Amino acid sequence: MSDTEKQELGITESKEHSTGDWYAEVVQKAKLADYAPMGGFIVTRPRGYDIWERIKGYLDGWFKDTGVTNAYFPMFIPEGHLEREKDIVEGFDPEVAWVTEGGYDELEERLAVRPTSESIIAPFISRWTRSHRDLPMRLNQWCSVVRWEATETKPFFRTKEFLWQEGHTAHHDEDDAWTETMLRLDQYERVYDEVLAMPVLKGRKPEHDKFPGAHTTTTVEALMPDGKSVQGGTSHYLGTSFAEAFDISYVDTDQQERTAHTTSWGLSWRSMGALIMTHSDDQGLVLPPTLADPQVVIVPIWQEDNKEVVLDYAADIETSLAEAGLRVNLDDRENRNPGFKYNEWELKGVPLRIEIGPNECEEGAATLVHRPDGETTAVEREGLAGTVDEHLDTVYAKLYASAEETLEAGVREAESREEILGTIGQYGGYVRCGWCGDEACEDPIKDAIAAEIVMVPLDRDEEPIHDDCAICGDDAEETAYFARTY
Amino acid sequence: MSDTEKQELGITESKEHSTGDWYAEVVQKAKLADYAPMGGFIVTRPRGYDIWERIKGYLDGWFKDTGVTNAYFPMFIPEGHLEREKDIVEGFDPEVAWVTEGGYDELEERLAVRPTSESIIAPFISRWTRSHRDLPMRLNQWCSVVRWEATETKPFFRTKEFLWQEGHTAHHDEDDAWTETMLRLDQYERVYDEVLAMPVLKGRKPEHDKFPGAHTTTTVEALMPDGKSVQGGTSHYLGTSFAEAFDISYVDTDQQERTAHTTSWGLSWRSMGALIMTHSDDQGLVLPPTLADPQVVIVPIWQEDNKEVVLDYAADIETSLAEAGLRVNLDDRENRNPGFKYNEWELKGVPLRIEIGPNECEEGAATLVHRPDGETTAVEREGLAGTVDEHLDTVYAKLYASAEETLEAGVREAESREEILGTIGQYGGYVRCGWCGDEACEDPIKDAIAAEIVMVPLDRDEEPIHDDCAICGDDAEETAYFARTY
Repeated sequence: MSDTEKQELGITESKEHSTGDWYAEVVQKAKLADYAPMGGFIVTRPRGYDIWERIKGYLDGWFKDTGVTNAYFPMFIPEGHLEREKDIVEGFDPEVAWVTEGGYDELEERLAVRPTSESIIAPFISRWTRSHRDLPMRLNQWCSVVRWEATETKPFFRTKEFLWQEGHTAHHDEDDAWTETMLRLDQYERVYDEVLAMPVLKGRKPEHDKFPGAHTTTTVEALMPDGKSVQGGTSHYLGTSFAEAFDISYVDTDQQERTAHTTSWGLSWRSMGALIMTHSDDQGLVLPPTLADPQVVIVPIWQEDNKEVVLDYAADIETSLAEAGLRVNLDDRENRNPGFKYNEWELKGVPLRIEIGPNECEEGAATLVHRPDGETTAVEREGLAGTVDEHLDTVYAKLYASAEETLEAGVREAESREEILGTIGQYGGYVRCGWCGDEACEDPIKDAIAAEIVMVPLDRDEEPIHDDCAICGDDAEETAYFARTY
Repeated sequence: MSDTEKQELGITESKEHSTGDWYAEVVQKAKLADYAPMGGFIVTRPRGYDIWERIKGYLDGWFKDTGVTNAYFPMFIPEGHLEREKDIVEGFDPEVAWVTEGGYDELEERLAVRPTSESIIAPFISRWTRSHRDLPMRLNQWCSVVRWEATETKPFFRTKEFLWQEGHTAHHDEDDAWTETMLRLDQYERVYDEVLAMPVLKGRKPEHDKFPGAHTTTTVEALMPDGKSVQGGTSHYLGTSFAEAFDISYVDTDQQERTAHTTSWGLSWRSMGALIMTHSDDQGLVLPPTLADPQVVIVPIWQEDNKEVVLDYAADIETSLAEAGLRVNLDDRENRNPGFKYNEWELKGVPLRIEIGPNECEEGAATLVHRPDGETTAVEREGLAGTVDEHLDTVYAKLYASAEETLEAGVREAESREEILGTIGQYGGYVRCGWCGDEACEDPIKDAIAAEIVMVPLDRDEEPIHDDCAICGDDAEETAYFARTY
């Protein structure tokens, strides 16, 4: 192994001590993404895009199974459309990229590159909705959006352009729209639970941090190992605000014209950022088997005198695992030694390694090594595909358990401003406390340690955990979850 | 059926006499697309997007089976990058949309919304390519691009923003890159042959109409029923021009630094336009079973006294077809009569209709109706899934045969300028003739009837069909295919 190669394979930063630099190094060395020439933009490399395609595959299947149809709307939104949204929706003033010239001419009206598509989609939902039979209407698009926020680039977490899906639906009434809002939130929770190997908290954004125009913004929040919370996906019940502004109404069974209730919901590649941040370590990327390709790498260990036997045995294993539907790769490169291969596949996050040497061949065995913790097990060749499947499930469970431990240990309570500051300052994570509901009570925490109220309980009727607001001491209206965020 | 409903279901324009208006009407009434508020842009509705997703599914699978990996590059390209391409690539001066403002600030450098991504992808292929082991490198992205051409909007055929895939690859040498170029062209031919039910001609663009910077641009051309040719996909062998400009080189096995050879290839939703234009008719959309959802619609015909029997029988058929993997829909709406349903599903292009009335129930039978020609067959209930499968194949074959007939009858020869003009003027289609190779000989045809040389034979050594150029009379160098185009 040359020095350059060692450099390319080794993660030099520490996850614990320099999380940000470590994250950037993992993303680059595992070849997930690279930095684009323009600040704030990244290039998603095949190994990164493959993860996104798999996340997309799961969610898209669930969406379609529950009545969603995909569509594609223009990437540009005329300024007048955005202004219309601004007029009706308090607080809506997104920083966007503006197209002002087309070909060699100045445009008469500026076009925003979509930051989100409510204002271009709602007019069409209006046009296509006449009768109660046209509802519910459920549209989704997988696309990229641009938000011109001037912050430091952090691949997948913070980029000016990012990939996401945005769902936009219209319904007969509040009940149906609320059910939709919760269905999508549950699907977001499910993708974290069953695909990303991460538990999340479900909640509601406080009133002052809702999506502009929303009646209710619900969220799934994931806790990173460095104690910060990531907003993992949001699902908005929009009430009738967009329907009224864009005239989405229908003739009901009783021939009365009624206003529809709408929702929108989105999950972005930030979920990938959370995935990488949560499971990876100082050896590099760690992927759950749900998202890894390959899921299993076979590393043969041979000398000249047993090479053929070992390689034949390993190739036979590769075939039987592939036939069982596993994504498997036999690394039979001649010019790399096993140690190099271990390092490389560890860096790339492959969940399970199978080592095959002359001993394994002789004994009809295989040695399995789990990526997350290096646990090594000798198993029989007989029935290996089933055994590997079980071990992949175990690897998934290990990843989930570790993230769950972080989350469970990461929720604490506080009864005063000092306790909030001290607890988050020392441990990070979430601090739950009584809250009067006034945004002003968030300010001193924000100013002091850049933590904010990331959510309140979903259930509006839930009693606050304490009687008093931890900050101002007035009566508590609900329970606030304070945390630092990505 | 109300008058409004009749209006919504009926195609009023004639495919034969007003092809353009007819096409626009089919696209809108079959709910494939709608016009966006900005000229030149469309909204792709779920029924249209579903077709695109299916085309994408086939191609993407073939790409991945042949070594392609998907990636995602930024949608913006800094002006300097485009300029670099302009400097090295004669004739490259695309009309693009320019982002000049971000947030509330003017940008220091204008950003082009990608018209195609060579100039943003090539620098990264350069960065990622060091050794011969890094090649071949095959990247593809499914995305939208924007070309600011001021022409009349024609959904899927001509829109300022359109969806496509663009493949970008780098190879050790010319042989390997040329093999790649032809492999992708063959896959484009295959998607027309096996998915879109359309034969195409394969050829090369004349030198003066190559992709700027390409050594060779290859194309698949499809003939529309109105006699115009559609460029159905192009695959470019770029030689070393981009590799030299963007410094894509590698250290070969002999330790020598060599310049890579690159390719790029793209197929857009124009293929959908060609599909719609080719197969549809004055009743509306016609889809091949490969792309239709549903592929089969069951229309039950009942009276009050036999309703239950008919609906049970029809539901049982739906279940058995669905279990056989067919996309099937039982239209048991109460408030629509069978005639209305026939019209609606015909408009939507469903390839096969199954009519179930009391007679069918009694006789253990089903009546199958082919969408393209209305051919009606009484078949047995027993083994229906297999029978339906065969009929779907027959429908596909009918569509293909009809398109093939158009293409075969549409290629004619000419030996003089007058003959070219007369033949295309009268019949449309392709006119093959001897050509000296000089662009100037295309001009009089272009000026007179807006026909151009859409291709020449792939094989550079193929003898021209006539000894002399049909236009200038000089020695012919190759065979030109003249046609009007979309």
